[in-house]
Amino acid sequence: MRLRDLPTPALVLDRSKLLANLARMRKGVGRHGVALRPHLKTAKSVDIAHLAFGGAVGPITVSTLAEAEYFAGNGFRSITLAAAIPAEKLDRAARVAREGAQLTLVTDDLETARAMAAHPGRFRVLVEIDSGEQRGGVPAEDPALVAIGHALGARLAGVLTHAGHSYLCRSLDEVRRVAEEERSAAVRGAERLRDAGLSVEVVSVGSTPTAIHGTSMAGVTEVRAGVYMFGDLFQAEIGSHGIDDIALTVLTSVIGRRPGENRILLDAGALALSKDRSTAQTAHDAGFGVVWDLEGRPTLGRCVVERAYQEHGIATSDRPLPFAALPIGTKLRVAPNHACLTAAAYDRYHVIDGGDELVAEYDRINGW
Amino acid sequence: MRLRDLPTPALVLDRSKLLANLARMRKGVGRHGVALRPHLKTAKSVDIAHLAFGGAVGPITVSTLAEAEYFAGNGFRSITLAAAIPAEKLDRAARVAREGAQLTLVTDDLETARAMAAHPGRFRVLVEIDSGEQRGGVPAEDPALVAIGHALGARLAGVLTHAGHSYLCRSLDEVRRVAEEERSAAVRGAERLRDAGLSVEVVSVGSTPTAIHGTSMAGVTEVRAGVYMFGDLFQAEIGSHGIDDIALTVLTSVIGRRPGENRILLDAGALALSKDRSTAQTAHDAGFGVVWDLEGRPTLGRCVVERAYQEHGIATSDRPLPFAALPIGTKLRVAPNHACLTAAAYDRYHVIDGGDELVAEYDRINGW
Repeated sequence: MRLRDLPTPALVLDRSKLLANLARMRKGVGRHGVALRPHLKTAKSVDIAHLAFGGAVGPITVSTLAEAEYFAGNGFRSITLAAAIPAEKLDRAARVAREGAQLTLVTDDLETARAMAAHPGRFRVLVEIDSGEQRGGVPAEDPALVAIGHALGARLAGVLTHAGHSYLCRSLDEVRRVAEEERSAAVRGAERLRDAGLSVEVVSVGSTPTAIHGTSMAGVTEVRAGVYMFGDLFQAEIGSHGIDDIALTVLTSVIGRRPGENRILLDAGALALSKDRSTAQTAHDAGFGVVWDLEGRPTLGRCVVERAYQEHGIATSDRPLPFAALPIGTKLRVAPNHACLTAAAYDRYHVIDGGDELVAEYDRINGW
Repeated sequence: MRLRDLPTPALVLDRSKLLANLARMRKGVGRHGVALRPHLKTAKSVDIAHLAFGGAVGPITVSTLAEAEYFAGNGFRSITLAAAIPAEKLDRAARVAREGAQLTLVTDDLETARAMAAHPGRFRVLVEIDSGEQRGGVPAEDPALVAIGHALGARLAGVLTHAGHSYLCRSLDEVRRVAEEERSAAVRGAERLRDAGLSVEVVSVGSTPTAIHGTSMAGVTEVRAGVYMFGDLFQAEIGSHGIDDIALTVLTSVIGRRPGENRILLDAGALALSKDRSTAQTAHDAGFGVVWDLEGRPTLGRCVVERAYQEHGIATSDRPLPFAALPIGTKLRVAPNHACLTAAAYDRYHVIDGGDELVAEYDRINGW
């Protein structure tokens, strides 16, 4: 079957680009001599997780218990759930570990740490450090850090931080500065716990921009990153990769033509693309996605989905669209603003390998 | 089981509010003596579709072929797919009709109309009219309208329009004006087809705001609307219903606390809420949703999800949050900006009936 024969909208993954992205991150993190613990919150796919380790299994990061269960059930043995969960979910989490996986949880809360210490299940815990994003975590200097470490007792395995504010950077120098904030906050947190007589095995950091551009990983034991696998318009814009490295696109059909307005109507709208507008704050606002031809080339000019209704996207270009070559039914591909959110609308990937032949179908685990 | 016992995030539907919303629309459209053809693109649920007809089946509107197949397979007999499809999908569409349903398609394209006329399947077609939204459709005055009508031949059943630009209105007077634009464009289109000797049975209009506030339906045969079933923050803001009429919320747990910043971290983020920001253009920007307590009351003040990461929402309030009453694990409910997009992240509804007892579970059909 060929790409052009797929019913639209459909999620398309170019394996050749995926493999290059995976190899680049492995090499980039490898140069620091630290472990890579890929975050599967973007791909949510066992097939892709295997590719991330060259066909093997390795340590992974997940964002939901549903992902933890799915990957544990498919043979992954070291799983870090990098989002805090309330104590009432510990029973469900502990069942993941019963399937033979080493499960690692995170917390930044003293009461939850006490509940974790008292729980009979088999899991270890990292204290979440806030390295500047001001989302979750305690600052490395906060006295709460050591109190939480003590409360965790034998469960304590180390610290984890995520410099999500690297997404706000607009230059590589800024990314490098944030990467150093991320590293140093995690290392300081680990030192404070060790100074308090606690044992710290894991010092976990990561985001795609900081993993790629960080200059030092001194004191770090592992790096997490996820969106690097696919890339997207936003990551290209902030310098995580090139525009041609984007491995994920949405196959769409032209379902309307408005030559007088230089616009085409696509059957990829808000549900097929997501309403993510990450690039709105960057130098090149990509609307709800950038439209490429079936081969993934920008032959329509800078063609942007400027309006997204539930099932309709309206695209226009900075040059006159070639309407003679765009009859109703023409297949095009839309590069996403934010791969994590676009992929979440689909239950599978249709895989190509550079060309237009469909070579595989990978499933995905959605929901919670 | 009680609402508080559900794992979070979860989609919660208050049936008592749903039934009131359904009854209000039936009464509102009924006063004009025209048929209501509910749009199931929001609910995507057979259970809810039955409730829309007081437990029976009736004529419905859908937005995807997947919905058409699902509802036809569940006994719905008159189905209008109100989004244009390319000719290559006609085979799949015609299979829906083979299950005994009367299927109605739309087009605004001459070549597609010819392909429809030549197709062996059993379906009828409405010509889509652009009543001012500038999305799909031909203007009622466009010569293309009659050409498409002639091309459709015996398949032609009438005209359809959707005044989606009613969403841009900021006063009821504006909505009434757009409703009249919608009605008059559809009726003019029907007249032009009739003047050309063509038979027009269906004159279909609708959007939730215009269905509620339109003052005349003269010449119209049916009204379509969908989001009125659940309501949302955006529809409340533009006057389609009251804030207390919102029947759909996302159950979430507090997973982080930042008293120094008057912020709480929720396990409902961009995937659980969607990244829709419809209310950003209204008088009361609701961020990524407004946070109510477990009972659905605004006891946290104007508490808004101001940042949405993949699995984390960060909420703050216009008054000091009662942190003593908000330990980790506290269950809250988030009212959505745009119900259609929020619901799309879930495969089922957890149904309450005013109180906190779970009385039913309704499934949903997602995807394409």
